[in-house]
Amino acid sequence: MTDLMKKQSIFFKNPPYVQGHASIVGKKEGNGPLGNMFDIREEDDLFGKDNWEEAESEMQKRVFLRAVEKSKLKKDDIDFVFAGDLLGQSIASTFGLMDYNIAMFGLYGACSTSAQAIILSSIAVAGGFAQNVMALTSSHFASAEKQFRFPLEYGNQRPISASWTVTGAGAFVVGKEKKKIKIPTVTVGKIVDYGIKDSMNMGAAMAPAACDTILHNLKESSCTADYYDRIITGDLGIIGQEILIKMLKDKGYDISKNHIDCGIEMFNDTNQDTHAGGSGCGCGASVLSAKILPNIENGKWKRVLYVATGALLSTVSFNEGKSVPAIAHGVVFEK
Amino acid sequence: MTDLMKKQSIFFKNPPYVQGHASIVGKKEGNGPLGNMFDIREEDDLFGKDNWEEAESEMQKRVFLRAVEKSKLKKDDIDFVFAGDLLGQSIASTFGLMDYNIAMFGLYGACSTSAQAIILSSIAVAGGFAQNVMALTSSHFASAEKQFRFPLEYGNQRPISASWTVTGAGAFVVGKEKKKIKIPTVTVGKIVDYGIKDSMNMGAAMAPAACDTILHNLKESSCTADYYDRIITGDLGIIGQEILIKMLKDKGYDISKNHIDCGIEMFNDTNQDTHAGGSGCGCGASVLSAKILPNIENGKWKRVLYVATGALLSTVSFNEGKSVPAIAHGVVFEK
Repeated sequence: MTDLMKKQSIFFKNPPYVQGHASIVGKKEGNGPLGNMFDIREEDDLFGKDNWEEAESEMQKRVFLRAVEKSKLKKDDIDFVFAGDLLGQSIASTFGLMDYNIAMFGLYGACSTSAQAIILSSIAVAGGFAQNVMALTSSHFASAEKQFRFPLEYGNQRPISASWTVTGAGAFVVGKEKKKIKIPTVTVGKIVDYGIKDSMNMGAAMAPAACDTILHNLKESSCTADYYDRIITGDLGIIGQEILIKMLKDKGYDISKNHIDCGIEMFNDTNQDTHAGGSGCGCGASVLSAKILPNIENGKWKRVLYVATGALLSTVSFNEGKSVPAIAHGVVFEK
Repeated sequence: MTDLMKKQSIFFKNPPYVQGHASIVGKKEGNGPLGNMFDIREEDDLFGKDNWEEAESEMQKRVFLRAVEKSKLKKDDIDFVFAGDLLGQSIASTFGLMDYNIAMFGLYGACSTSAQAIILSSIAVAGGFAQNVMALTSSHFASAEKQFRFPLEYGNQRPISASWTVTGAGAFVVGKEKKKIKIPTVTVGKIVDYGIKDSMNMGAAMAPAACDTILHNLKESSCTADYYDRIITGDLGIIGQEILIKMLKDKGYDISKNHIDCGIEMFNDTNQDTHAGGSGCGCGASVLSAKILPNIENGKWKRVLYVATGALLSTVSFNEGKSVPAIAHGVVFEK
């Protein structure tokens, strides 16, 4: 574990609020256990477009508008957009959002991008530099397979440790106005590398980064794990979850009772054949909007720590024999 | 031109300062007209490493340390890093910076990343969320050719409108403490798409984005073009420069006397065979550190507007017949 002496959390004096949020998913996700909780479920995984990249951009377009609408705002009330995706040169975000003509910051944090975007949105609002900011991220199973693995037609077999990239997106409007959900604290992650070289076991690669960020958050907030109703990771899956719980136990923190993982929540592993669980930028983002934030809004949970984890690899780094380092960013949501 | 009604600039009440900065370049850049102005010039374009991606990461490693040293700080005085590069999944930044164990935000803005990183660093510092932040970006001719075009061994010919990706990196420490150079204003860009489909003419693709950001900056600052001693673009090259000057003239702003472009400054076109000029994240970043900021420090210029432009394409978007949209971010530096 890397050095814990250096602080990585920001405690906002003027915390920003979630003004509204929305989720969109594809067919498989819509058929999963959270199916009816998503704002938009599409039967056609091409979302009416000609290729997978355009399909992913189309999800971003639609979920952006839905989040603006649910925030009771207009498109032009959004001062800045923070957005990213998994594709090389983030083309899903470029072609998804360019028609909205809003000043934009492009991000890359792999599957940690949802939390990274919310952190930067929170900083922009809490610093007084914007009224409303959009944080948005997406992934698409087919565009991700094409980017990172094999063409779908190849029918590649997947080991049991592999996760299934979620076709989905989540959009979050962070703003000044007081609303039901506050963002009092964020914890920025650093890159953690345990030397894992198996790109089909990203849970194992990402668990140490999640552990590091959760430790920083708990220590810097001077609290124990049960301070949070839930500690929620983005897409560790079942193998990563086991590793994370053990790593934190070794450090004196027991999260076994209040940890959930969006990747595990997303699919029904007994009949959806997704192995370790869901993954991708859109996994954490869509579950955050569909399940986590509503449970805070309806009073079931008072306070959660959301930690999105990203595996920082490319086909080039993998083929050059590099390890799979990871990063995890944390956001506290509070009623 | 897109809508100018919506503001995109931030005027800092508590402006941050440049604490220090550094540049590193490869052999060709070192042999160019700015050669002896760079902090580090390396004869070996592999920077002692085994492949081009590692070479690019090595540049990031070295320029980070040099900028910290020139700021008279220690590595651990840096609260956050904002970094990005041109490679898929930003692997040059991941493997370049991970050993420093500093909380990090990964960015993707193509060649606009240098300004995007400085803007976000400025927001973090001006908002009171950090004392010192590092903004860092790089590009490498050979890793970029591999990523976007052809293997070097193929000996591909390049049209006269093509630019030459700079092997270089720049690092900037933005912090609270008063120093010689202040950042009073930043202008965040939006994506502008003129429908250009020629990936070998990125100057033409990016000029409209630069025009949009400069217009926003001038209008929102209520000033004319000569308010700035220089208006400096990142890597438009000679074709993009001509288009930009004409576009702004049509809008009533004459920048023909005070515009310079880092891509044009970098190489000597008569004997370096670089066609339209230099480009890449590292072009603007290294020239900003080697030439622009020193000219403010030594009093030659009082105030400049630095606008880094990025062409938002990937091989996938290009091969799918998409246009090359662009984005440009602006930063004002003042003595």
